[in-house]
Amino acid sequence: MKKYLLVILLAIGCIGTALAQQNTSYRAGDLVSPVVNPDGTVTFSLQAPKAKKVEVIGDWEEAGGYGLMKLVSKKEGIWSYTTPALKSEMYMYRFIIDGVTVIDPLNPFSRRDVGNIFSIFYVGGGYGDLYQVHDVPHGTVETVWYASAETQGQRRLQVYLPPSYLSDSHKSYPVLYLLHGSGGDENAWLDLGQINRIMDNLIAQKRIREFIVVLPNGTISKPAAAGETSDNMDFRPVMTHLLPDYKNGRYEASFDEIVGFVDRTYRTDAQRHSRAIAGLSMGGFHTWMIGLNHPQLFDYYGLFSAGLDLNIGQKPFAAYSNYEQKQTTFKNSGYQLFWIACGTDDFLYNINTEFRKQLDEKKIPYQYRESTRGHLWINWREYFVEFVEKLF
Amino acid sequence: MKKYLLVILLAIGCIGTALAQQNTSYRAGDLVSPVVNPDGTVTFSLQAPKAKKVEVIGDWEEAGGYGLMKLVSKKEGIWSYTTPALKSEMYMYRFIIDGVTVIDPLNPFSRRDVGNIFSIFYVGGGYGDLYQVHDVPHGTVETVWYASAETQGQRRLQVYLPPSYLSDSHKSYPVLYLLHGSGGDENAWLDLGQINRIMDNLIAQKRIREFIVVLPNGTISKPAAAGETSDNMDFRPVMTHLLPDYKNGRYEASFDEIVGFVDRTYRTDAQRHSRAIAGLSMGGFHTWMIGLNHPQLFDYYGLFSAGLDLNIGQKPFAAYSNYEQKQTTFKNSGYQLFWIACGTDDFLYNINTEFRKQLDEKKIPYQYRESTRGHLWINWREYFVEFVEKLF
Repeated sequence: MKKYLLVILLAIGCIGTALAQQNTSYRAGDLVSPVVNPDGTVTFSLQAPKAKKVEVIGDWEEAGGYGLMKLVSKKEGIWSYTTPALKSEMYMYRFIIDGVTVIDPLNPFSRRDVGNIFSIFYVGGGYGDLYQVHDVPHGTVETVWYASAETQGQRRLQVYLPPSYLSDSHKSYPVLYLLHGSGGDENAWLDLGQINRIMDNLIAQKRIREFIVVLPNGTISKPAAAGETSDNMDFRPVMTHLLPDYKNGRYEASFDEIVGFVDRTYRTDAQRHSRAIAGLSMGGFHTWMIGLNHPQLFDYYGLFSAGLDLNIGQKPFAAYSNYEQKQTTFKNSGYQLFWIACGTDDFLYNINTEFRKQLDEKKIPYQYRESTRGHLWINWREYFVEFVEKLF
Repeated sequence: MKKYLLVILLAIGCIGTALAQQNTSYRAGDLVSPVVNPDGTVTFSLQAPKAKKVEVIGDWEEAGGYGLMKLVSKKEGIWSYTTPALKSEMYMYRFIIDGVTVIDPLNPFSRRDVGNIFSIFYVGGGYGDLYQVHDVPHGTVETVWYASAETQGQRRLQVYLPPSYLSDSHKSYPVLYLLHGSGGDENAWLDLGQINRIMDNLIAQKRIREFIVVLPNGTISKPAAAGETSDNMDFRPVMTHLLPDYKNGRYEASFDEIVGFVDRTYRTDAQRHSRAIAGLSMGGFHTWMIGLNHPQLFDYYGLFSAGLDLNIGQKPFAAYSNYEQKQTTFKNSGYQLFWIACGTDDFLYNINTEFRKQLDEKKIPYQYRESTRGHLWINWREYFVEFVEKLF
């Protein structure tokens, strides 16, 4: 009886706090936000009769920047704003209600990026289609822990296994190791990069062959993402340079233990020509240093908006020593692909330009892809798509 | 340069919107919320200088109910509230700021329950310890899709594989099939039930043996959780009775295809004495109907706050036909355990009482566990712990 009463109250959009005793997990009313309109514009709505000012802040650039857009109060306390037509993408946004920044209370879909939670939406018709689920064969995503000799503990990683992996027990697969940026973790390329969906879709479109993607955690002082360690809520996500053991090279020097675990645990084609490594921001720096320390392991390298450090050779850590000599060895290893991508608005644009100059001087071959925009997931997802189409 | 400027601005807690161009994912300031104090009280804080009224609503009962607690404005626009000492648990809460219900902007940890997102926290020292991560051997969690003959499409499920599964390739394991409630999905027992952590911890404490847990999706009209289907954001999470094909018995009748997939794909001990099934609310109803339709498959049954329907035998669907006869077959199948649990404040308490009367009349053996409280994850997590200690 109470159950049906609840349904009726929901239907008329007036669930009260009394019923919250049984279940606080119902959304009231018919208002929907956001609505992606057929013309690619997006309408946000918020019921906040007592608010004085409501803004939306998101990562689209079509409105001439990433600044604040003000919602307009319509009637009965419902605020609303419609964007210009947006390019096909996955977007993240939040509301600022009288100065308090929050997710859209009407949107059940969210993602955490470093220390904040954002509401998300997709605009289809282009790249945004690759980031959404379609009725195609789906791969498996595994959250696994491996024993690290380096840290003397377990460490967590995510693995994407392509669609045929579970059904075809004789096939072996190439592996891409894909590294997150500062403040990120082993979940970032799934939650924000949507790489399991991209892989499913590109495989279904026969744009890539099937391969495994491994997402390690590159914060050596922490075994796993915030909230997934024994610190639990005491470890709140922060930028990695605020944590111990930042840039001491232990992660890069010991990366072969991750490759070893993966080759032991999964049906991999455990050869150099079937291994790639790429990363964004700090993960691009890691990719470069891992390549220098383990040039025999990988045949493909991707640096996405890499957080390079041109003075790293001066740091007193084994992974960073003999920096010049390691570059010569790296060059002579004869890799298939060294792919560097950066956006013109990225705060790391200049250091990437300087880095490429050094590579030119040393005649270390690479391919360069310059995009517009800054240090954003919008770029990294597109770089991922472009990069994986060149692999294996 | 910009990077270090950002760090400095973060350090002094005054990041502005200008820098949001590069990254909108930093949390400003030193304020922390919530803080679980050593005495088990919990302090919430919110910076909202322009707000007129701030409340917190959560699922703890220590304050004499689940009602609203008002935050008090302290100084410089910071609102604060401290709970009484709370029992060790995982708790969910939201703020209501001038009538708008949102998650805690300072808490990076959240969970979706049906259509809403909640902030979460843990109080340790009891059950809450089981729901958090500890430095114990961790199992693997897999998100997999299986081909359903019933729906002629792929369907998504989650699998927990115990710690030794990846390393010991010869061992086989019993399986618990664990079903979600209305509005839930294959993620619910992980995100809200924390069963991967409970399993890791109970196994480490040697309170249970290692076994596999399978979390299927019980909404037959949808192949996966909201946001994980080709409907993408068009399918917003709702209570299951609002979707097509509710209570037509197709899920229960075809459940053997899930068991078949699991036995083909994983190293299971594919025998009745190594199979259990349990579910909460709608999943408790499903468990009962699956038991009646496949009594040869399972030796252990768990009904947690089951959403039973005493008139189900009158519905014109194969899974629900011959209801009386199926109960006799079920009774004669000689199962190990039929465990029923319900809270005294649950809106399904009376129907569970009525159901048990019918079982008594038919001399169908069961064990009954009555708890306090209502239709809440707090109960279901505890029921899970109690139930799995009785298995295999």
